[in-house]
Amino acid sequence: MNDSRSAPYYGRHIFFCLNQRDNGDYCCAQHGAQEAFQHCKGRVKDEGLAGKGKVRVNKAGCLNRCAGAPVAVVYPEGVWYTYVDLADIDEIVEAHLKHGQIVERLVLPDEVGR
Amino acid sequence: MNDSRSAPYYGRHIFFCLNQRDNGDYCCAQHGAQEAFQHCKGRVKDEGLAGKGKVRVNKAGCLNRCAGAPVAVVYPEGVWYTYVDLADIDEIVEAHLKHGQIVERLVLPDEVGR
Repeated sequence: MNDSRSAPYYGRHIFFCLNQRDNGDYCCAQHGAQEAFQHCKGRVKDEGLAGKGKVRVNKAGCLNRCAGAPVAVVYPEGVWYTYVDLADIDEIVEAHLKHGQIVERLVLPDEVGR
Repeated sequence: MNDSRSAPYYGRHIFFCLNQRDNGDYCCAQHGAQEAFQHCKGRVKDEGLAGKGKVRVNKAGCLNRCAGAPVAVVYPEGVWYTYVDLADIDEIVEAHLKHGQIVERLVLPDEVGR
């Protein structure tokens, strides 16, 4: 764990699915994903967590786990979340992105797919 | 390393920055990112690599390493690539996404940022 590869460019990189399905199928964009993304990005910036070696909050296309929408994934841990409201986002920021503690109650069950 | 958390939903998750900057600044979308994304997605599907426990090829918004555009990142490893053409994408698919071998010649230097 001593080579440069062990230090990722972003310590934690969270991707929000912002996919919009034009055919009306269940998707993240119908469930406040854009607002959650913006809120997360603002909170991370306000907390001074943003940047190289720290946190990046990213838009993503369909993550293909639509049945759990809205979803987000945190790498390099590969922890997937589903959230309901902005208080959930605050908790993910404070616990996971800031302190590395997984928010168990929001973790997306492994069997949830498209 | 024996708990379920150790097995990520996708074994490898590659995100292509497809960001388009409207002001004409240097960005991935100007450098064939969309075509590279589509090509990668097609190759992964054709190779039977796509799906849960395997590989996911994803669109992403700005990854904020624009000076290295076009860029993509593979998680959970956190390996960043810059690429020139579709042959580079083929090599990333074959070596990294299929066999877990980093394509050193395409790795984005750590100091490349926005």
